[in-house]
Amino acid sequence: MDIVIIGGVAAGAKAAAKAKRVQPEANVKIYTEDTHVSYSSCGLPYYIEGNFEDYKTLLVRSVEEFAASGIDVYLKSRVEKILPVQKDILIARDTDAEVVKYDKLIIATGANAIVPEIKGIHKYENIYTLRKIEDGINIRKKMLESSTVTIIGSGYIGLELLEAFVKNGLRVNVIESNKKIMGGFDDDISDLIRKRLESSSIGNFEFFTNEEVVEITGENKEAKIIRTSSGKEIETDMIVLCTGVKPNIKIAQDAGIEIGQTGAIKVNKLMHTSIEDIYACGDCAEKRHIVSGRPVWIPLGSTANKEGRCAAMNAAGEYCEFEGVLGSTVTRCLNTTMSKTGLTEEEAKEVGFSPISALVLKTDRVAYMPEAGDITLKVVADKVTGLLLGGQAIGAVGADKRINTLTSALLGHLTVEAFNNNDLTYAPPYSTTIDPLLNAMQILTAKMRKIRQN
Amino acid sequence: MDIVIIGGVAAGAKAAAKAKRVQPEANVKIYTEDTHVSYSSCGLPYYIEGNFEDYKTLLVRSVEEFAASGIDVYLKSRVEKILPVQKDILIARDTDAEVVKYDKLIIATGANAIVPEIKGIHKYENIYTLRKIEDGINIRKKMLESSTVTIIGSGYIGLELLEAFVKNGLRVNVIESNKKIMGGFDDDISDLIRKRLESSSIGNFEFFTNEEVVEITGENKEAKIIRTSSGKEIETDMIVLCTGVKPNIKIAQDAGIEIGQTGAIKVNKLMHTSIEDIYACGDCAEKRHIVSGRPVWIPLGSTANKEGRCAAMNAAGEYCEFEGVLGSTVTRCLNTTMSKTGLTEEEAKEVGFSPISALVLKTDRVAYMPEAGDITLKVVADKVTGLLLGGQAIGAVGADKRINTLTSALLGHLTVEAFNNNDLTYAPPYSTTIDPLLNAMQILTAKMRKIRQN
Repeated sequence: MDIVIIGGVAAGAKAAAKAKRVQPEANVKIYTEDTHVSYSSCGLPYYIEGNFEDYKTLLVRSVEEFAASGIDVYLKSRVEKILPVQKDILIARDTDAEVVKYDKLIIATGANAIVPEIKGIHKYENIYTLRKIEDGINIRKKMLESSTVTIIGSGYIGLELLEAFVKNGLRVNVIESNKKIMGGFDDDISDLIRKRLESSSIGNFEFFTNEEVVEITGENKEAKIIRTSSGKEIETDMIVLCTGVKPNIKIAQDAGIEIGQTGAIKVNKLMHTSIEDIYACGDCAEKRHIVSGRPVWIPLGSTANKEGRCAAMNAAGEYCEFEGVLGSTVTRCLNTTMSKTGLTEEEAKEVGFSPISALVLKTDRVAYMPEAGDITLKVVADKVTGLLLGGQAIGAVGADKRINTLTSALLGHLTVEAFNNNDLTYAPPYSTTIDPLLNAMQILTAKMRKIRQN
Repeated sequence: MDIVIIGGVAAGAKAAAKAKRVQPEANVKIYTEDTHVSYSSCGLPYYIEGNFEDYKTLLVRSVEEFAASGIDVYLKSRVEKILPVQKDILIARDTDAEVVKYDKLIIATGANAIVPEIKGIHKYENIYTLRKIEDGINIRKKMLESSTVTIIGSGYIGLELLEAFVKNGLRVNVIESNKKIMGGFDDDISDLIRKRLESSSIGNFEFFTNEEVVEITGENKEAKIIRTSSGKEIETDMIVLCTGVKPNIKIAQDAGIEIGQTGAIKVNKLMHTSIEDIYACGDCAEKRHIVSGRPVWIPLGSTANKEGRCAAMNAAGEYCEFEGVLGSTVTRCLNTTMSKTGLTEEEAKEVGFSPISALVLKTDRVAYMPEAGDITLKVVADKVTGLLLGGQAIGAVGADKRINTLTSALLGHLTVEAFNNNDLTYAPPYSTTIDPLLNAMQILTAKMRKIRQN
């Protein structure tokens, strides 16, 4: 039995390892156009920052380790075409080509960075995106010889790089076309994030929101000036594009595999595509949102791992259902933790809930403890049913803890009323007697009580 | 309407505040034999340690603040008797007595420290228990003039005081009659706690397990020597008894209120006792365990707050149900976090489940992050149904986060299979790609699969 996997970063690498464990006598092969396999791309900003010296730290499993467990990895091997009738894939390399047969095919082609159509953007060598190991190496190298950097986009990667760059002493400009930074959060939380970051004593940086980049100019293949929609001219030694990603679906689409309404490969709960014996997982695959029940595309390394495992189990003859995602994220920038799960208030409205929310600003543990920090927590629920819909938390410490506590509640479809009974741990070094989460629930309970009385 | 509350630390203080808010025109009165009202007794070890100078930091709400919101607090006022037929209570003070009528009565008499029957124990003034503000003040004062201290008992308070004392430079002996320390954890976890603590470079301390204290001797009202069952003679400058607490139920029992099988006051989900218009909440009240469905007595400040709120709402004419507890706890000793929720493997067996468990030892975040620490996590499930039963976590950091994530899952009665889909937040500074919790669930899933195949 040939189990062939296209792509080998997170979902693909996980799928290969799991398939071999479930079905030890199967031939498990990974084909990837990448120069590396099985690495933590989420760790690249921390490599750039200098938390560790050697980029090899990011490699989870080497080609040799895969080989030792009986898995063949083919690097720099681009899959040109999937032929579902023959159950073949066509591989192209720099010097040769190959036809490979499969019994089960797992597509884990990931996502690509979006390069926005800006005048001059393709002219210069000091403009980067960050997806692969080489990108990280190149950005770090250039960073070490630069004094100013411009990040276009203010989402997760943008802010993670902001931290990496300011910690290396660079002056950082962040240009964002949206009116707010960290667009995935509700406006009120996003405003607080900006205020917190701007009041940080660390780093030399500036946010330019509501600004489109109109043109990039420079000389000798080096971009130097960024012109924005309001007429600003920003000088820079290097540019990093953090303007989002799109699913890499071309070969799937060419093979006639159904693409979902989000633009990613449509799969069922078994991670199976519309064509028999072909699975998809990770950033190239569409997901179901557990709270809204709707198809979404939220590409994350943690999800890729779960989906890779699940796809492999089903391909290799075991059974696994993947229920979907909650859109849970966390990141850090300049001592501010930003985390969320489920639906924002805005998203909840869009999908037809009647959201209400509670915003709590507290210390994350009893205020008399020396290590106490602040936490701002927003919890969103449906005012008709009381169903919990999501939460957002930012703060010095402890924000991610509250969000993970919410994820289990969302997974279990708990209501606010039910959550009031939650027996969260308490001791002065760890939380307030009434945890900020329970506080938020009590506010929501009171709000709903009022609505019902009217 | 007279809402009368007996006791004013956590449950009582909360009940008073909530009752007044729900029913502003009610007369709300607190009677307590204590010299203080509304304070964080969980914070006493941190006061003793010296995290803050003034014990008043522990006071949540003063008598004056209660008065300002229309609540009368009567300190040093011992309730001698409840007369349910007349709906009166009898108060005794140093200089006078009083009969007070009630329409609704809330009993929040808390728990008392157990003083074990040891020869000589009542003879000396340097033997302490820790429950009230005065206890904290006295222990701190004595600590500052001592060089050796002996703690009898190695539960939460015992280990919190161990940290407080070693940080103040004292030599600490901990004597435990049980064969393990932190008896609330399973043996394997308790062993790991002991190993972690004993390998700590901080502090000068020793555990003596499996040792009963047989006799305490000394001179001039000062205990000096502790003789143990194995014949050891331990010299000490002071002794703190951390040998547990028992619910303070005397006046309830005398009034004919039903006492539960755990020895605490029996209440229903409305926190109502067996006698009309009398509620009980906090450490004096029995609780229902959400996982086992059985009555338990787990006295905790966080629970006291929830129960106080709930009792007050019902007494004041609103409606509130309290579902019960999970036995969630957390504490810290010498940089080790110890946390648990739900049933231990041992407890699960006792109440009739067929537990299996997974033990995971991992870094709590990606190992290449400089702040990564270790975490040991044990998750317990029922092998027949897959129902999650509980978890225990210890480690340098991040242990409490995993336990709170489990509490919501236990509250929602999730199975291991369902939890596999949990979309926990991931970024290198916060967790591993596959969180230790998900890792444990995968191990449990595989174990259950094997059992089902056989």
